[in-house]
Amino acid sequence: MDDYILDMDRENRLGFPEVIYGKSKSVALLGQILRDYQQENRNALASRLQPEKGEALLNEFPGSFFDPLSGAFLLKRNDLPEADAKVAIISAGSSDQFAVNEALYTLNLLEEAAVCLNDVGVAGLHRLLNRLDDLKKFSVLIVVAGFEGALPSVVGGLLSQPIIAVPTSIGYGVAEGGQSALHAMLSSCANGITVTNIDNGYGAAMAAYRIIQLLKHNP
Amino acid sequence: MDDYILDMDRENRLGFPEVIYGKSKSVALLGQILRDYQQENRNALASRLQPEKGEALLNEFPGSFFDPLSGAFLLKRNDLPEADAKVAIISAGSSDQFAVNEALYTLNLLEEAAVCLNDVGVAGLHRLLNRLDDLKKFSVLIVVAGFEGALPSVVGGLLSQPIIAVPTSIGYGVAEGGQSALHAMLSSCANGITVTNIDNGYGAAMAAYRIIQLLKHNP
Amino acid sequence: MDDYILDMDRENRLGFPEVIYGKSKSVALLGQILRDYQQENRNALASRLQPEKGEALLNEFPGSFFDPLSGAFLLKRNDLPEADAKVAIISAGSSDQFAVNEALYTLNLLEEAAVCLNDVGVAGLHRLLNRLDDLKKFSVLIVVAGFEGALPSVVGGLLSQPIIAVPTSIGYGVAEGGQSALHAMLSSCANGITVTNIDNGYGAAMAAYRIIQLLKHNP
Amino acid sequence: MDDYILDMDRENRLGFPEVIYGKSKSVALLGQILRDYQQENRNALASRLQPEKGEALLNEFPGSFFDPLSGAFLLKRNDLPEADAKVAIISAGSSDQFAVNEALYTLNLLEEAAVCLNDVGVAGLHRLLNRLDDLKKFSVLIVVAGFEGALPSVVGGLLSQPIIAVPTSIGYGVAEGGQSALHAMLSSCANGITVTNIDNGYGAAMAAYRIIQLLKHNP
Amino acid sequence: MDDYILDMDRENRLGFPEVIYGKSKSVALLGQILRDYQQENRNALASRLQPEKGEALLNEFPGSFFDPLSGAFLLKRNDLPEADAKVAIISAGSSDQFAVNEALYTLNLLEEAAVCLNDVGVAGLHRLLNRLDDLKKFSVLIVVAGFEGALPSVVGGLLSQPIIAVPTSIGYGVAEGGQSALHAMLSSCANGITVTNIDNGYGAAMAAYRIIQLLKHNP
Amino acid sequence: MDDYILDMDRENRLGFPEVIYGKSKSVALLGQILRDYQQENRNALASRLQPEKGEALLNEFPGSFFDPLSGAFLLKRNDLPEADAKVAIISAGSSDQFAVNEALYTLNLLEEAAVCLNDVGVAGLHRLLNRLDDLKKFSVLIVVAGFEGALPSVVGGLLSQPIIAVPTSIGYGVAEGGQSALHAMLSSCANGITVTNIDNGYGAAMAAYRIIQLLKHNP
Amino acid sequence: MDDYILDMDRENRLGFPEVIYGKSKSVALLGQILRDYQQENRNALASRLQPEKGEALLNEFPGSFFDPLSGAFLLKRNDLPEADAKVAIISAGSSDQFAVNEALYTLNLLEEAAVCLNDVGVAGLHRLLNRLDDLKKFSVLIVVAGFEGALPSVVGGLLSQPIIAVPTSIGYGVAEGGQSALHAMLSSCANGITVTNIDNGYGAAMAAYRIIQLLKHNP
Amino acid sequence: MDDYILDMDRENRLGFPEVIYGKSKSVALLGQILRDYQQENRNALASRLQPEKGEALLNEFPGSFFDPLSGAFLLKRNDLPEADAKVAIISAGSSDQFAVNEALYTLNLLEEAAVCLNDVGVAGLHRLLNRLDDLKKFSVLIVVAGFEGALPSVVGGLLSQPIIAVPTSIGYGVAEGGQSALHAMLSSCANGITVTNIDNGYGAAMAAYRIIQLLKHNP
Repeated sequence: MDDYILDMDRENRLGFPEVIYGKSKSVALLGQILRDYQQENRNALASRLQPEKGEALLNEFPGSFFDPLSGAFLLKRNDLPEADAKVAIISAGSSDQFAVNEALYTLNLLEEAAVCLNDVGVAGLHRLLNRLDDLKKFSVLIVVAGFEGALPSVVGGLLSQPIIAVPTSIGYGVAEGGQSALHAMLSSCANGITVTNIDNGYGAAMAAYRIIQLLKHNP
Repeated sequence: MDDYILDMDRENRLGFPEVIYGKSKSVALLGQILRDYQQENRNALASRLQPEKGEALLNEFPGSFFDPLSGAFLLKRNDLPEADAKVAIISAGSSDQFAVNEALYTLNLLEEAAVCLNDVGVAGLHRLLNRLDDLKKFSVLIVVAGFEGALPSVVGGLLSQPIIAVPTSIGYGVAEGGQSALHAMLSSCANGITVTNIDNGYGAAMAAYRIIQLLKHNP
Repeated sequence: MDDYILDMDRENRLGFPEVIYGKSKSVALLGQILRDYQQENRNALASRLQPEKGEALLNEFPGSFFDPLSGAFLLKRNDLPEADAKVAIISAGSSDQFAVNEALYTLNLLEEAAVCLNDVGVAGLHRLLNRLDDLKKFSVLIVVAGFEGALPSVVGGLLSQPIIAVPTSIGYGVAEGGQSALHAMLSSCANGITVTNIDNGYGAAMAAYRIIQLLKHNP
Repeated sequence: MDDYILDMDRENRLGFPEVIYGKSKSVALLGQILRDYQQENRNALASRLQPEKGEALLNEFPGSFFDPLSGAFLLKRNDLPEADAKVAIISAGSSDQFAVNEALYTLNLLEEAAVCLNDVGVAGLHRLLNRLDDLKKFSVLIVVAGFEGALPSVVGGLLSQPIIAVPTSIGYGVAEGGQSALHAMLSSCANGITVTNIDNGYGAAMAAYRIIQLLKHNP
Repeated sequence: MDDYILDMDRENRLGFPEVIYGKSKSVALLGQILRDYQQENRNALASRLQPEKGEALLNEFPGSFFDPLSGAFLLKRNDLPEADAKVAIISAGSSDQFAVNEALYTLNLLEEAAVCLNDVGVAGLHRLLNRLDDLKKFSVLIVVAGFEGALPSVVGGLLSQPIIAVPTSIGYGVAEGGQSALHAMLSSCANGITVTNIDNGYGAAMAAYRIIQLLKHNP
Repeated sequence: MDDYILDMDRENRLGFPEVIYGKSKSVALLGQILRDYQQENRNALASRLQPEKGEALLNEFPGSFFDPLSGAFLLKRNDLPEADAKVAIISAGSSDQFAVNEALYTLNLLEEAAVCLNDVGVAGLHRLLNRLDDLKKFSVLIVVAGFEGALPSVVGGLLSQPIIAVPTSIGYGVAEGGQSALHAMLSSCANGITVTNIDNGYGAAMAAYRIIQLLKHNP
Repeated sequence: MDDYILDMDRENRLGFPEVIYGKSKSVALLGQILRDYQQENRNALASRLQPEKGEALLNEFPGSFFDPLSGAFLLKRNDLPEADAKVAIISAGSSDQFAVNEALYTLNLLEEAAVCLNDVGVAGLHRLLNRLDDLKKFSVLIVVAGFEGALPSVVGGLLSQPIIAVPTSIGYGVAEGGQSALHAMLSSCANGITVTNIDNGYGAAMAAYRIIQLLKHNP
Repeated sequence: MDDYILDMDRENRLGFPEVIYGKSKSVALLGQILRDYQQENRNALASRLQPEKGEALLNEFPGSFFDPLSGAFLLKRNDLPEADAKVAIISAGSSDQFAVNEALYTLNLLEEAAVCLNDVGVAGLHRLLNRLDDLKKFSVLIVVAGFEGALPSVVGGLLSQPIIAVPTSIGYGVAEGGQSALHAMLSSCANGITVTNIDNGYGAAMAAYRIIQLLKHNP
């Protein structure tokens, strides 16, 4: 039988494409899949690529884009004005940037701009409080944090939009791997926060897109 | 200092009220808090009440409502036509009803109707496939499941709305307590599913309400 | 050999007495131990007593005190003016009161007053921000929280005193038993927070007392 | 005493040979064991070899076969027509191929053909539903999946043969290492699914062979 | 919508019926479901009933059968001669009887006899070795054990049939809840053992039945 | 087949009898097994009996003995002079007495006396240091502790005999259930300490007896 | 928006500066942040640097200091006489030196001297007992241990100062990663010990500094 | 203060020396410690050395011995006749050899010979049953196994000597890291088995030596 079966129909069915999980696929297999997308004149995103795999694909696909921090590879990066952004991606520390970027480039694939607000962790609360009015303008907030993962609780008590919390694996000791942040976010006393898997910037972007798509189709 | 401080301002700040976590509060304390709400002419929800606490409060507050399955107590249950429902609550088995009900009565507090579709677990897939067209009409889907928690993955591959997955503690052996369902939902390969804490029907309803509120304010 | 050996010398050695862990001792054994203290004209604290054991001891020891919420039993409760308090005990929700009380009555045994500030969880941040100036007056802060345990992170970023964080077992799903709160507190990005075992109000009070004792002996 | 003791009698006792767990054995020891098999004119399988160990053994044993994806090494690969296959190996994604291959080459050692159906994960359900009639022809189904491990639940609700579920370590966050998939498969609501250790394609093939052997001896 | 949806079609689709998970359903709901089966002239099994629920249903359904050890309730117990048994259920200790019985009565529903061999744990190996020849006659072996769960490893090294291992929650300390036995069975060095969830006698019986059904349809 | 198979031969094979795990057996089954022992004129121990089961058996077997703290039931308690004791059982706190007693009565069955030294936890080190010379006289030391389980590390650095560490489930928070004590004992930096399962006083006594038996047979 | 936001105000607010978590930041980003501090004429500490990152920064910042064991990098190391030390850092084994050093250099940044007492684990208790009088002179004790983490329990029973326990990841088997030591320290029966995250020498130093700062401001 | 404090007195106190845990010490520190031993004319063992550290020390100490499999380094390997061995080391598979060797070379330091019996795992039981009479001659049995760790249960049911079980980290999936084997050994139904930490061949040898020392001093 076949080596792989692409779900090319997903865009018709759901309004957004399948994304290629690149971590455990070879460059050869990734190249083959990406060429399938290219032949259909479609953009595509491969996620979690090791740097050397990203570099190899950059060479193979002229005009493509690779972000080594998140491992995200785009056949074509879209040029989107920040002013149109419906999504804000807020993160606790600059170590969480890799997950922020995964969300950002997934939204880029979906042709949605996003604005990033980094380094507003709860240990220095004024950094967040100063930006509250700016943040009220966005439709969806993605909140990214490692260590104790307290940022979504604070944001959720201050702002009323849909909030998608992304725990990251940043931290050490009991925080290593991201379970502490994940559990804190799931246990949040702030109302109506939902959570993705650890480091899953991609999933957060997709969840945000499901909401944006709903807004668009809402008369 | 005071025994408790209510966050009466939350409704102004966020558009929805604080909910009272009732599991570890005494009937006396609960009664006192509920009277504070009553005096401000506001409805209120106390969650996770043990049956005897619910019964005691029913006696104390005429016209109130108590659901023994979920432990949800409402000062006043709203009468809402199902036809207006923007939220569908889908569950895998009838043992998950307690979490379905917690979501349902939280939405009732927020004056949002919801429709429930029970017993459509993936082991008998036709039960879900038969209802797909009906489900396309709702703005938000809350998907509730215990045991292996596979239902959100299947729903997420078939429907494009925002999906909030609620793992339940229903199951035994490795599924006891709900960690298996939680982890399966967080790991879902279906795009853009977000997850609440185990048994957190309340949180799912609040997250759905954040989206509905956004739709309302969207011109 | 003997049934038990009391560490009567501990007060000489360390400046504070042994406390009796009452959860798994019989009323008979507890009574015997408390009489040993009484015969030496000393006050004593038995912790974690089940209500029926507390009631039985109240009958046996006239003038004694029992708090059913925390299970703390004192041979004699000290009358201490709040104005002298060097310790503030801050808690996120009224469900955490049992651990607050354990700290309070342990300090009472040690003849130290404490002030309690309840219900200032991070989902309604203004409740805490309004009290910051009051809190600056205390030498030591004990911060008690269950669920996501975010309160010590916020307090630690705003106040400079020694902060002892006490995670509680209050919560459900991943928060049940208190591991989420414990891990969040251990992972805190706020500088120099230390943590006790889950629900260990007693240990927090003792740690606070070690600091107060140091202050007293400091010329 | 001896460095190792082979269980050469296993084939007489059980009808199938011992397989050599190669991960933590040196090339020297593996070579010595394989020569023992060769001298008895028997085929042999060493599993989980690191690539460099596989390459070294390929050089030492002419006519042998090595699959770098699974680390399976066969003294001799059997040439078996797919049309005779009694086993189908179904997998959720192409990242699971390593475990599929371990099952495939273990069956090859046992002189049983197998057919592989890759990339039919539940997020794109039509890929599986399109193949149901084909799948009804096989005696045993091996179902391989990582991440949320939902595939066996869906297959088990649609097909009546014996189903052996193999969780894989493919995934990240809570799915990393395969515990999420393992627990989901053990908790499956579909009737009568049994499960192997994480990544244990070898064990699944052996379990399938126990069933096939039973069929052969069944008059 | 409806309170529950039965999968009445499962028997046509798969050759065996749905079983009712009774642990978290009320007597009223169970009675309603069982009457649905009765009206279609079908037998039915409700599993994991608390004793008082089993007694109530015995009164409601004349001729029904209830086993308090396993909590299994049958509308009608089949009378099957042991001599026809294709399945042997082997258990390590008499404390495991509840899981043995769940398997036994599930097979009874499916009209398959089974033979039980209790108390043959590996600490007294001769008890098993004495019965090996008897055990060779059965098509499928279900092996049930708690504590260290070593019995399937020993059986799997001595007998060639399909072996379905059922870990039980019997044990204390690290063995409490059955994780030790589960992990030991999944890690077994004996070839081709597959495993069910902890205490899942029902699942083991269903898996055995999938094999027996295959044998019957095999020309 | 039979309901249970006793390993009556164990005493011939190993020099010590099987012990009956009573926690999950009915009084009826326990009575039947104990009568089998009585008919062979042998003493017997049933462990972990709930109080009501112990009381029922006391009535049924005149001259028998039951310890409600440990749940140990002896057909006949041996009268052994402490002066002959080869084993000392040292415990950290009086809450650990139940595990001490289980070891004590298991040794009693084996006709070995033991001496108990309670309440010598490491937080008051002088209580242990005062007894070192006494302790040097025993052949084997059983060391029982809950909470942080530090006692075996200290004893192991001071005394040279075989040391068998028994972690107990006494403690709360991270210590609840005994995993903290178990892990501390397994990790001990003191040389040559071995460990039993949590609360396993019985196993510790048996391990001590294996050593004593060796001493007796040593010329 | 900006790549990072420094909390330069922290020193005014709390009396101590933010420390830079260096493990997952690039040399370029670290250099940029350190230059910001340099331009304000402030000292700074970057923690957890990989050796090659530390070496690169040493070259970039003349007069800076790097400790490869702990990964601590100081813009400027302070020259502080040991005789002024208010903090003693006690460790169980020389493998724990990395965490000792992290505490030491954090205190150095804060211009506080500390004295280190290494290798006084409880398996050789005399090493600690010999130093008790020396240790009584310090205001705060930081106690560092891996493996079974018993040292704080023993120190806490002998000395009355504030004790901050730091579990380390040193150990193997169940002790690997430091959870055994962490849980033992949290469960300690010695009164009033508080605990930091695993390997968190930095946090321990900060907690010590909060106490020292309190002493200074205490009239 | 000093960089390290050796417990040179341990041999007087306990009859056996301290062993140097080498995994996280530098070659320089190890060399310094070993020279201290050499200067006192004593043999010494450093354990868990990485190969390159072992090679470096071999060059520095003429006549020394290094085993790369276990990482054990001896200043001087003793020449001991196998016929005098009081200890047998039994292992389940040849992958467990590293832990066997650690026990062997620890005994060598203590001047006790040992005999090794490898590859007698329970999946091929005859390999063990054939050697039972040989094994009866030894005073102490060390039993080493990874994966499901069932070997000690079988040995403990057949032989009466003291049995020290060593779980190893050999295995994958749920067995990876050795927790499955550890838990199985702790849960063993065979009487009186005690257990060491995962991979702790050193501890098992020390525990065996405590017993042998007792035998020697027994009149």
